[in-house]
Amino acid sequence: MPRDVPRLYVPIPMHQGMILTLEDAQAHYLLHVMRMNVGSTLHIFHDDAGEWLARVVSCNRKTLHIEIIERVLPPQLSPDLWLLSAPIKGKRMEYIIEKATELGVRKIVLVRTERTIAAHLSEDRLNAHAIEAAQQCERRDVPKIVPIQPLAHILEHWDVQRPLLYGDETGAGMRADRAMAGLTYPLALLIGCEGGFATHELEMLRAHPATIPLHLGEHILRADTATIAALTLVQHYSASMI
Amino acid sequence: MPRDVPRLYVPIPMHQGMILTLEDAQAHYLLHVMRMNVGSTLHIFHDDAGEWLARVVSCNRKTLHIEIIERVLPPQLSPDLWLLSAPIKGKRMEYIIEKATELGVRKIVLVRTERTIAAHLSEDRLNAHAIEAAQQCERRDVPKIVPIQPLAHILEHWDVQRPLLYGDETGAGMRADRAMAGLTYPLALLIGCEGGFATHELEMLRAHPATIPLHLGEHILRADTATIAALTLVQHYSASMI
Repeated sequence: MPRDVPRLYVPIPMHQGMILTLEDAQAHYLLHVMRMNVGSTLHIFHDDAGEWLARVVSCNRKTLHIEIIERVLPPQLSPDLWLLSAPIKGKRMEYIIEKATELGVRKIVLVRTERTIAAHLSEDRLNAHAIEAAQQCERRDVPKIVPIQPLAHILEHWDVQRPLLYGDETGAGMRADRAMAGLTYPLALLIGCEGGFATHELEMLRAHPATIPLHLGEHILRADTATIAALTLVQHYSASMI
Repeated sequence: MPRDVPRLYVPIPMHQGMILTLEDAQAHYLLHVMRMNVGSTLHIFHDDAGEWLARVVSCNRKTLHIEIIERVLPPQLSPDLWLLSAPIKGKRMEYIIEKATELGVRKIVLVRTERTIAAHLSEDRLNAHAIEAAQQCERRDVPKIVPIQPLAHILEHWDVQRPLLYGDETGAGMRADRAMAGLTYPLALLIGCEGGFATHELEMLRAHPATIPLHLGEHILRADTATIAALTLVQHYSASMI
């Protein structure tokens, strides 16, 4: 659960003694939410740099200058698990991004299925949610969000070395223990949108050499619940993470 | 995932041929969101009555009269699993209620721990979220929400016949497969608020005869994520539901 030391994702090369300027939303957060001042410490991180301790050396109402003190943790990528997600509307999509980040997904691929109805998808906004969630949950990397592509295109270009589990609502899927038997990373998980996959999509999925149908229970789960439940089970069986 | 036939929770005794009047939010939803009219059909349900088919027999702009046609499904209670939840602020608490409902919890007990900070908890609002989620996910019962009580009080009056799993962030918990070994319903799951349990609360939990510490992984999970992940695993190991 969230700690007190602020953590910021700052995607630039880092080295000891370097002075960085923070502005805009990051400066606002540190100055006016966390009430930092000269001498306050924080952590900054990104995928290649790991996590570094830094200290505020000067600030005004809108800008901070921080000095990088030392590296406290080496870089660490999340497990090689991708989430393929048919976007849903509004807050629930932001929630999926946040939860997938917390549950340790390395990449999020947006997928257009026949029943996908989410219209105006702001990738900037989804990225901002991924960054915020990574900052909160002590991940040292931020999941990459891949712009939306049609399901057929994704399956056509799929690397069969990466097993693709998909949430199968028809009752024909396997329970997670069976579906995950013998699997390790790299892995991917596909969750359709509410309304499920169309018949021709199910046929395409079933015929594909890399896919494994995953049963997610008798209950009707919303897309966000199905995503979190399936990620929990995949991580539970693959990584001993949960 | 959600279906097209509207389902409404109507907590009154039901029998064939009965005429019901629907007003306010329910009428608004049916008339102006679902655009129902005379002859439209819907399902109504509650814990003791099961699920019934009904048909609109008359309506105006604000009220509908429906006739109960026949019972389509007998009553069905969710598994005897309780969620003990230290409330968190705002939308995230509503989300916990919604997800616990979808994941098949029979009762939600609000718990005050030392670090609980949620101040203004509207039980009516939480109840409304539970009802809405139950309507969406085809449950035939609605989880009862029990008003907030201090953790110490709950533990003191606990029926030891109901094992109480609790999310243990200290690293001393057991993985779900071990924690759940040999357990069946009745069960309960306790998730603390962000910031975790205080030391004296952990001591109280460890000393209690009904408790089992559950490890939820190396990552820092927000309270809502921890709740959904833990419920997924408990249901997975206890009921073959997921």
